[in-house]
Amino acid sequence: MAGPSVSPEIDRLITLLARLPGLGPRSARRAALHLLKAPDKLMTPLASAMTIAADRISTCSVCANVDSANPCHICTAPGRDQTAICVVQDVSDLWAMERAGAFRGTYHVLGGTLSALDGIRPEDLNIAALIGRVSAGKTEEVILAMNATVDGQTTAHYITEHLEKTGARVSRLAHGVPIGGELDYLDDGTIAAAMKSRRLL
Amino acid sequence: MAGPSVSPEIDRLITLLARLPGLGPRSARRAALHLLKAPDKLMTPLASAMTIAADRISTCSVCANVDSANPCHICTAPGRDQTAICVVQDVSDLWAMERAGAFRGTYHVLGGTLSALDGIRPEDLNIAALIGRVSAGKTEEVILAMNATVDGQTTAHYITEHLEKTGARVSRLAHGVPIGGELDYLDDGTIAAAMKSRRLL
Ligand SMILES: [Zn+2]
Ligand SMILES: [Zn+2]
Repeated sequence: MAGPSVSPEIDRLITLLARLPGLGPRSARRAALHLLKAPDKLMTPLASAMTIAADRISTCSVCANVDSANPCHICTAPGRDQTAICVVQDVSDLWAMERAGAFRGTYHVLGGTLSALDGIRPEDLNIAALIGRVSAGKTEEVILAMNATVDGQTTAHYITEHLEKTGARVSRLAHGVPIGGELDYLDDGTIAAAMKSRRLL
Repeated sequence: MAGPSVSPEIDRLITLLARLPGLGPRSARRAALHLLKAPDKLMTPLASAMTIAADRISTCSVCANVDSANPCHICTAPGRDQTAICVVQDVSDLWAMERAGAFRGTYHVLGGTLSALDGIRPEDLNIAALIGRVSAGKTEEVILAMNATVDGQTTAHYITEHLEKTGARVSRLAHGVPIGGELDYLDDGTIAAAMKSRRLL
């Protein structure tokens, strides 16, 4: 990818870097060069951080968060409210919620949203496990924190219907979240305000 | 960087990824999550590619290219014209020249440009080695391929002066309208240069 006279080791590095989201061929070449110029200060530490993460991090069998413990540290933290579950599309949204610091319950990561267009059905998402968790009885409130997109809201509607007979309260984040906006792009204050004004469904 | 309840292994991964050029905190989090979701298919191979590169790649003692051999494969290729040296600012520019396939000589990587603003002096760049190479006598032409910026042109001027007594021809890349470029998008300097160097048809 860098050119015919580039060593295969560098070419492989660039090819793999280009598979990261947001890195095109040109920025992958820049990143590779940056790493090659700092073998001890950046490339080796980053390689080691990746090896350690690949070795230690797994998906929480309760909430689908990624963590070094299973169940994850959030699921087992004694200080957190086990009666509240915040449902998010992806781990990045869980991180955004945690950065905002506006929620002290537990999470459930769906792994996406329902999508007619992309052919994503309820069984493709982590929804059955959510219904199972809530049906087990300890949950008092489920807060739906999906993106305010059509697919996000379709997913929220589907989950609300399927949680009706569990008796748990179902709420959603207030519409302080801009229509079409994604949680991970929002500032902490907006997320905190939306959490505070959440509505019963 | 991902939040207070994120495992330190993930936090370290994000912190190091954020040090790559072009990756801010948000895109570093996205990249980390992408890696965590593909430990075997991407994270481990990338870690391994980095470890191998850190181990095998070094800076060519002749031209300052990065390669698994020293002198590099370009410096030692029997098919390449050893009498022509193309001087570039950075290895990324060498790669760009190689992709273009328009040059079959050797290179010399300066490692930057002279800059009064940033306090970069001739001794901070790989210039003395270039003068040494050319003075050794085999070089017939030195092609200056610095960026068409003020600092790039200052550097070209400095090198031209210091190569005068070696007897080698010194040239620079032509300025003009890029192939496929639209006049309306070009700066005035480029248009003026293209007009000045216009060719009879
Ligand atoms: Zn968990
Ligand atoms: Zn070389």
